[in-house]
Amino acid sequence: MKFNIALLAGDGIGPEVIDQAVKVSDAVAKKFGHEITWKPALTGAAAIDAVGEPYPDETHEICLASDAVLFGAIGHPRFDNDPSAKVRPEQGLLKMRKKLGLFANVRPTFTFPSLIDKSPLKKERIEGTDLVFLRELTGGIYFGEKGRRDGGETAYDNCVYTREEVQRLAKKGFELAMTRSKKLCCVDKANVLETSRLWRETVQAMEKDYPEVEVSYEFVDAVAMRLVQWPNSYDVLITENLFGDILTDEASVISGSMGLMPSASMGSDIALFEPIHGSYPQATGLNIANPLATVLSAAMMFETAFNLPNEGKAIRDVVNKSLAEGIVTEDLADGGKAYGTKEVGDWLAKNI
Amino acid sequence: MKFNIALLAGDGIGPEVIDQAVKVSDAVAKKFGHEITWKPALTGAAAIDAVGEPYPDETHEICLASDAVLFGAIGHPRFDNDPSAKVRPEQGLLKMRKKLGLFANVRPTFTFPSLIDKSPLKKERIEGTDLVFLRELTGGIYFGEKGRRDGGETAYDNCVYTREEVQRLAKKGFELAMTRSKKLCCVDKANVLETSRLWRETVQAMEKDYPEVEVSYEFVDAVAMRLVQWPNSYDVLITENLFGDILTDEASVISGSMGLMPSASMGSDIALFEPIHGSYPQATGLNIANPLATVLSAAMMFETAFNLPNEGKAIRDVVNKSLAEGIVTEDLADGGKAYGTKEVGDWLAKNI
Ligand SMILES: CC(C)[C@H](C(=O)O)[C@@H](O)C(=O)O
Ligand SMILES: CC(C)[C@H](C(=O)O)[C@@H](O)C(=O)O
Repeated sequence: MKFNIALLAGDGIGPEVIDQAVKVSDAVAKKFGHEITWKPALTGAAAIDAVGEPYPDETHEICLASDAVLFGAIGHPRFDNDPSAKVRPEQGLLKMRKKLGLFANVRPTFTFPSLIDKSPLKKERIEGTDLVFLRELTGGIYFGEKGRRDGGETAYDNCVYTREEVQRLAKKGFELAMTRSKKLCCVDKANVLETSRLWRETVQAMEKDYPEVEVSYEFVDAVAMRLVQWPNSYDVLITENLFGDILTDEASVISGSMGLMPSASMGSDIALFEPIHGSYPQATGLNIANPLATVLSAAMMFETAFNLPNEGKAIRDVVNKSLAEGIVTEDLADGGKAYGTKEVGDWLAKNI
Repeated sequence: MKFNIALLAGDGIGPEVIDQAVKVSDAVAKKFGHEITWKPALTGAAAIDAVGEPYPDETHEICLASDAVLFGAIGHPRFDNDPSAKVRPEQGLLKMRKKLGLFANVRPTFTFPSLIDKSPLKKERIEGTDLVFLRELTGGIYFGEKGRRDGGETAYDNCVYTREEVQRLAKKGFELAMTRSKKLCCVDKANVLETSRLWRETVQAMEKDYPEVEVSYEFVDAVAMRLVQWPNSYDVLITENLFGDILTDEASVISGSMGLMPSASMGSDIALFEPIHGSYPQATGLNIANPLATVLSAAMMFETAFNLPNEGKAIRDVVNKSLAEGIVTEDLADGGKAYGTKEVGDWLAKNI
């Protein structure tokens, strides 16, 4: 098969980890007889510097014309420390999500047996953890009206959800639960927020269409606790945008390395794949960033966007092999030999 | 000295744990020659059942006329599973916070050496953890306009903050940091939210008044991770209402038992003391709930509201002693003998 893949490397360590995912994807394509054409495009601070815009129209056109998008990371401390900055890299990310209609962000958290001792949690707490968050990605407080009044002295952000937005996300959640252990947790703050009450009543009304799925309703603060206490008690969790941002990051550290968790963002049409970790500015250009989350995001791309499970499995297998043989970056080296970002990527591509 | 203390037991395990805090407080008062008059008042689901209102005016009057408020917990599953309920116990809690002007919620997380092995986290990750959250408690999305439109199909919640609201909370944060290790972390989502940008710029402008305090600015999702990875890297954290709700609950499980963490809510006038845990409906009436968080909340009351550090210390000491001697409820018993809620309270009162 032939694929066009938009390649949005972004900022910080983005370009370095993306390079490795490209190498590994090319190796898989070669092995299975596919042909990938990569379409690099600007995004984030890199795009602001080049064309004054974090998600330029040209980048959007390239994404629309592609079969999938592979994304690195965006964000730069220069903007974080300046609350008054008019254009910010993150605006590009949000605009991209919205314009590509990527309303469902799939974020798995799982453990690698060989890395279980790296986790801040005790082994017996995390063993067997294999959960997936479905985070709503194009609504809520991220996209509601925001601004200042009273001469800048008062700030506001509006959180808005429609029943239809909840339904389309929850539908994906129920469907995903049906392919797994049929347990779905709806995370909300229905004891305080009206949007959460809409979430809860909408999901409650959908239960009858999926009689086999056991649905639980939990408050976001309770989930923030239980994720640390008993992460392996969860299967599929659905939640709104901001809660999903916080909880998926919390969940991601359970595996023992943030650098390992991939994600997919889907809508009705195109899908985007990206590591959960951020742009990690301090590590930029040092060839030390862990490329595995991005490489595993490429695996999700083969599986989900191209429906090629064997290709995805080939990538997962070689990642497991690299972990078992200790071909790892310094975050996982544990006093042993640490390989560079590039060296890990080379090894993976060679061993596919 | 003579004190009037409003006693709001609330729902679920609230009355049981409150009873133990009363016993222990009375024992301390006796020992140090104080006289406490307890003023019981209705709140939560219990108040809805009795008078149709979760925070009746009479309760408010009793609080206003007291020197401090000791609070149990509120909430009942009967309301949680009914998104359309018109009156909810939590509304009483929010009304109480607002009407008493309790804008600063102080939530410490610390470890007990004798319980360190109970934590879901590895020992080396949590040793020495001693952090305090200052959560803004009367603003933000909890109190902004909320409702439905489009015939109920669209829900909204408004998050609003004024500079002054941020300043008064941040001031308490800077002051607290000055009495501790002079490290302050401002938690926000300034890369997305306008209210967070107001938080960040307001705190930045206050830095010059506290030149000794080292301030860091971190995104809420990053803090959700670091709390699991390196909780002992934090000292004082300030944050808005909803982020504080999620993160303080997350932090509370670090100590190894949610049942141990106390809290104080303060404003310009009266202060309220309550355990961090909720109403734990499943345990109601079983005499199994851990009373220590409420007992330690009473310690905070003596220290903070009455400025009586020795009395507070007497309570903390007896709590430590009970832990060392294994006079604990089942959540801490670890296969050993489990004492009832009441028996733990009796033991503490006797050993003051
Ligand atoms: C960079 C930021 C805007 C983004 C978000 O909050 O969605 C990130 O944290 C994420 O989770 O993808
Ligand atoms: C019961 C609920 C409304 C409350 C809150 O969200 O503030 C509770 O979770 C808390 O943290 O005190």
